[in-house]
Amino acid sequence: MPHAVRAPNPLLVNISARHCHLTPQAVEALFGKGAKLTPLKWLYQKDQFAAKETVTLIGPRSRVISNLRILGPCRTLNQVELALTDSIALGFEAPIRFSGNIPGTPGCMLMGPNGFFEMPEGVIRAAPHVHMHPDAAAFHGVKAGDFMRLRVGGPCATTFDRLLVRVDPEFKLEVHIDTDEGNACALRPDTPVELLKQ
Amino acid sequence: MPHAVRAPNPLLVNISARHCHLTPQAVEALFGKGAKLTPLKWLYQKDQFAAKETVTLIGPRSRVISNLRILGPCRTLNQVELALTDSIALGFEAPIRFSGNIPGTPGCMLMGPNGFFEMPEGVIRAAPHVHMHPDAAAFHGVKAGDFMRLRVGGPCATTFDRLLVRVDPEFKLEVHIDTDEGNACALRPDTPVELLKQ
Repeated sequence: MPHAVRAPNPLLVNISARHCHLTPQAVEALFGKGAKLTPLKWLYQKDQFAAKETVTLIGPRSRVISNLRILGPCRTLNQVELALTDSIALGFEAPIRFSGNIPGTPGCMLMGPNGFFEMPEGVIRAAPHVHMHPDAAAFHGVKAGDFMRLRVGGPCATTFDRLLVRVDPEFKLEVHIDTDEGNACALRPDTPVELLKQ
Repeated sequence: MPHAVRAPNPLLVNISARHCHLTPQAVEALFGKGAKLTPLKWLYQKDQFAAKETVTLIGPRSRVISNLRILGPCRTLNQVELALTDSIALGFEAPIRFSGNIPGTPGCMLMGPNGFFEMPEGVIRAAPHVHMHPDAAAFHGVKAGDFMRLRVGGPCATTFDRLLVRVDPEFKLEVHIDTDEGNACALRPDTPVELLKQ
């Protein structure tokens, strides 16, 4: 769903449904010794994929979300990303955080076919963010850690005023918002979108 | 949760969870002959209440929402208001509409202790809106049917760019957003909010 902006690349806005990132150790605990993630669908960012494997997430009130998708490849920390609607349903007090910034966040229990894996921390609501190649960041006059605004048009026109800028030479221009944000603005493939400086 | 703005009244922003409005005939079909709604909790707008009575909403894929709250008093048309997250879960294609504007919207089946009631239409996503006394509308320089912007601050700062203005001498100043919108901006009682002209 490309959208035209005057920028090095067209602007793609994708909705991230709840998911988790796991370490190789967590994958083995959940799926068995030697288990590895298998790609189900390649994502837009280089080498990133939705895995065939899913886990069951158990919240503090014994409520569960089944079939929580794992995104690969494995990382060096375990992180569960939920929309606020999910957090409320399960009873988590998940703060809004940048990916990887998990100290002090709630933990949870994951369940897979081989057993349980307890995360002492790592349940977050991911801040809406934009992946940018350094050229795109230069074009927009922003740097990693800055905030931009994402204006979404259409019948539920909404502007997200704190869109985190992430910059990496391997990134392609792509905005990630979660399901609450995507549903609030009723984002569809043909919805007009625009990146603005704060 | 009052918020200070330079206006005749402080600005109250409340989140409307999914609910329905029913005719007296629908209430009788669902709860029995002579049944009336009984107030459970009075709402901010005059004479409006959340009823003790709830219904089960049955969607097109036989998925259900139990305990859908009825708001009283009864109206002259039947209307179910869902957030987009609810609509997707149940399989409705509910368009965004102003309350009462239901021609061409999907229907549904409701179930109560006395039986079923079929709505041929009336399932909507309510447009976010602001209730205004004529004095407040005059203060802001807007009239019924106009749109304003609602700026919500905090860590998930979001601006709703199409907030419908509704004006009535019985209205008190109050913004209604749905659960998706409320969760997208992580609205809490102390979140700064501001009404802006478009």
